[in-house]
Amino acid sequence: MLTTVGTTLGELVKRLGGELIGNPDLVVSGIAPLDQADSASITFLSNPKLRKQAAATLAAAMIVKPGDAQFLQEQAQGAFAVTLIVADNPYAYYARAAQWFEQLRRLPLAAGIHPTASVDPAAQVAATATIGPLVCIEANAVIGEYARIDAGCFIGRGATIGDHAHFHANVSWHHDCHIGQRAIVYSGAVIGGEGFGFANDAGVWLKIPQTGRVVIGNDVEIGGNTTIDRGALSDTIIEDGVKLDNQIQIGHNCHIGAHTAMAGCVGVAGSARIGKHCTFGGAAMVLGHLTIADNVHISSGSMVSRSILEAGQYTGFYPLAKNADWEKSAAIVRNLDSLRDKVRALEKTINALNSAQNESNHD
Amino acid sequence: MLTTVGTTLGELVKRLGGELIGNPDLVVSGIAPLDQADSASITFLSNPKLRKQAAATLAAAMIVKPGDAQFLQEQAQGAFAVTLIVADNPYAYYARAAQWFEQLRRLPLAAGIHPTASVDPAAQVAATATIGPLVCIEANAVIGEYARIDAGCFIGRGATIGDHAHFHANVSWHHDCHIGQRAIVYSGAVIGGEGFGFANDAGVWLKIPQTGRVVIGNDVEIGGNTTIDRGALSDTIIEDGVKLDNQIQIGHNCHIGAHTAMAGCVGVAGSARIGKHCTFGGAAMVLGHLTIADNVHISSGSMVSRSILEAGQYTGFYPLAKNADWEKSAAIVRNLDSLRDKVRALEKTINALNSAQNESNHD
Amino acid sequence: MLTTVGTTLGELVKRLGGELIGNPDLVVSGIAPLDQADSASITFLSNPKLRKQAAATLAAAMIVKPGDAQFLQEQAQGAFAVTLIVADNPYAYYARAAQWFEQLRRLPLAAGIHPTASVDPAAQVAATATIGPLVCIEANAVIGEYARIDAGCFIGRGATIGDHAHFHANVSWHHDCHIGQRAIVYSGAVIGGEGFGFANDAGVWLKIPQTGRVVIGNDVEIGGNTTIDRGALSDTIIEDGVKLDNQIQIGHNCHIGAHTAMAGCVGVAGSARIGKHCTFGGAAMVLGHLTIADNVHISSGSMVSRSILEAGQYTGFYPLAKNADWEKSAAIVRNLDSLRDKVRALEKTINALNSAQNESNHD
Repeated sequence: MLTTVGTTLGELVKRLGGELIGNPDLVVSGIAPLDQADSASITFLSNPKLRKQAAATLAAAMIVKPGDAQFLQEQAQGAFAVTLIVADNPYAYYARAAQWFEQLRRLPLAAGIHPTASVDPAAQVAATATIGPLVCIEANAVIGEYARIDAGCFIGRGATIGDHAHFHANVSWHHDCHIGQRAIVYSGAVIGGEGFGFANDAGVWLKIPQTGRVVIGNDVEIGGNTTIDRGALSDTIIEDGVKLDNQIQIGHNCHIGAHTAMAGCVGVAGSARIGKHCTFGGAAMVLGHLTIADNVHISSGSMVSRSILEAGQYTGFYPLAKNADWEKSAAIVRNLDSLRDKVRALEKTINALNSAQNESNHD
Repeated sequence: MLTTVGTTLGELVKRLGGELIGNPDLVVSGIAPLDQADSASITFLSNPKLRKQAAATLAAAMIVKPGDAQFLQEQAQGAFAVTLIVADNPYAYYARAAQWFEQLRRLPLAAGIHPTASVDPAAQVAATATIGPLVCIEANAVIGEYARIDAGCFIGRGATIGDHAHFHANVSWHHDCHIGQRAIVYSGAVIGGEGFGFANDAGVWLKIPQTGRVVIGNDVEIGGNTTIDRGALSDTIIEDGVKLDNQIQIGHNCHIGAHTAMAGCVGVAGSARIGKHCTFGGAAMVLGHLTIADNVHISSGSMVSRSILEAGQYTGFYPLAKNADWEKSAAIVRNLDSLRDKVRALEKTINALNSAQNESNHD
Repeated sequence: MLTTVGTTLGELVKRLGGELIGNPDLVVSGIAPLDQADSASITFLSNPKLRKQAAATLAAAMIVKPGDAQFLQEQAQGAFAVTLIVADNPYAYYARAAQWFEQLRRLPLAAGIHPTASVDPAAQVAATATIGPLVCIEANAVIGEYARIDAGCFIGRGATIGDHAHFHANVSWHHDCHIGQRAIVYSGAVIGGEGFGFANDAGVWLKIPQTGRVVIGNDVEIGGNTTIDRGALSDTIIEDGVKLDNQIQIGHNCHIGAHTAMAGCVGVAGSARIGKHCTFGGAAMVLGHLTIADNVHISSGSMVSRSILEAGQYTGFYPLAKNADWEKSAAIVRNLDSLRDKVRALEKTINALNSAQNESNHD
């Protein structure tokens, strides 16, 4: 684990809530998993299967659910030596505590524009923003308060970047696209490229200019090398709190509802409309012009080829097998209709046999 | 919709063809879908299912097929108020009109090399080309007339970029690779990286240097974060008019025929030879060393594991289902050979029964 | 083929081993495939199916297995005119010879830092390293001897890059991440972005700061636009000799064993532990927290959803078919349990029929 400047448990609870059982003056300097934590660390127990591991932890303190706190103290017959922070959602508490440690550890940033950056005089960069080396910001772009744009980023004309946004190195952010406050955009992301729109004229593809934008809400995170295309006539929309992992592709005119999360390598074709609080496993794909309801969960590697109007978990990938076994099952899948036809023929024969036998029995 | 400097319908028809039914002096300033167009817009009807919507449009003018023009006028008993442009392919006409509006709207570009760019003295940059901030152009690279290379691009030594090409920000274009006229390359694309070629020597991979190039024709579009590897000994070839969406991977020594289009996240392994006028849905994959004929269409999410020598539409992805239903079907797929064996056993039993009954009937 | 400064066969064999049958003073200037080689080239025969093609080659020299050498000379009745280099693994010999030609051909690089690069005074750049135009190197980064960092790369604070590493243009290498000697990293790769770690708190995602690093061994190759996330609490680890193709995604806290190779578009979710000497075909996916043994080979397009503890080849993708045929098989797959239930019902009926007939036969 990375150590850091410490904080007392009392200060942590004052800041993040929860009930402290133990010494508020104890200093912890970082967070570690149950099995790696030492006497300078706080750890957490969110999976009840790990109760036994938790009972043996060397951590100074542990974030636990009320039920787990009771269990641990009973196990130790009231002598459990680890200070406890009791919270309803220890994993969320861990996230907040880790953010706090991160903030303590963060190096101070000098506001201002690096001398090697190329910033158009007509761009508006907040005085509190930090623009890194070799950044290019075009005319009329607006960079918010305390925003941080790292080395090599490109911000197109008229783009607007919210307060406290952090763009990692080498992001390409195209003209007129917007993102809200506290955005995090990772390296190599490309936002606002032109969507894949063509008309076919006698076998030749004619480009349809893409004149919409990408408009993104607050608290959105965009992974490394993810691409989001601008709309054709209207805008591509990403609502608040959406989290996109690396190498995701979002086509033109998609609309993604608030707090939906997508794991790496997901692809969404153009004009798909996805609800709020959905999750997509890695490499899931969504065809264009589909509608997906709120609270839909798509398993990894699954292809969504029809709209989904009912919440729930959906899956569709071919089960893995030893190659020889797959060869067998794939050959049958290829000819499944002949297997089905055989079963139908058997049904007929048996019905005939049955009738014949019944007749013969009634003879 | 984005408004723009206007154009008269007469000028539009003079430039793009089609039959004008209505006022040639009417000025339109942009294009919008049927349901969003207003009296300053032109719209289009290409899908006959939208005829009713078309009849109610507020647009100033509409691009229509001859049959639809007749329908609309009959519906309105000859009093259809919207000016019509009659064309055989309204969607292609829309694309061309949108390109024209785009051209009217385009900001003038100053030719020349931005002072923060690093251009080798031995590079040849046309006097009409525009080289953006923080671009790197190596020795002996050639940049064509009116080409535009946006911020942060890298153009390797000896590369040749055709006239009127537009490279968006942060493209990586490696040494000796060529692209023709009117190319559009989006941000983050990597062209001419070394292919994935290794010889295995007792468990250790030995790199095989990749000494071919990538050679690309005219009117090609390459999406954001797409990668095309240079050939091992000979070249990777992309013919004229090919359109590649975002995050596509093309392996070394592939050959892609003219006017083939691939949607996002497609992968093509090395030495595949793909015909002309093919289309690939999103995330389709093609194994290496395969041949695919002209006019083959691969559905999204499908794996091409054998050569395809006949034109047509091909598909192969596991159908999506509620997770519980998928669990059931996947378990059966895993053991499909035992289901098939059961059916075979049933056939035998029934044949035996049949014979027995026939015998007994003949008793 | 690209020609180059020549080398004698005697020098080649002295350098790379193998038995020379023919003239050691013969000069060759490059390598070409059997059917393209000319009298200035050396070629190789590694696939016994190509023996006939080999017999007709125009190459000056050929790398062959002992058995193939014998075959060719017998065929030509002792008069085979092509000089032979006999080696146990001609393909590996070809790789080494090609590396040697590549080295002869390589342009000399001037060591030093390009004046447009932005290198923090607290970075340590070896005097023999070459830092290209518009590179950004942050404080405390260490660049090894003879390393080459091409245009537009970003190297974060505290990162360490081994001797003889070559970073192609526009790589993003984040703070504190390490790579060993002779690394090759292609354009657009993003190493050390923050992993996709969130806790869900009443529907809202809370970011979990990712405080681990990415730690990579020697002789590793990382493809264009590949992304490798840093660990959450501990590190993401890539061992020696791993080869990653383009557009691969490696999640946080993965551990990839030595000499494992992955083809393009592979995705590996977080905390997967993959063995040594494994191979992954293009677009294979691995779910998180799985364990994969040494010497496991995953076919292209396959989803690994369970741990694999036994070496071997594994596959799982839906077989491609003409779309109409796929529609049929997919419809049956969707309802496979009803087909299975029918078979079960038939079994029952037949058992009953059998019993009835037996009884009737015993009447």
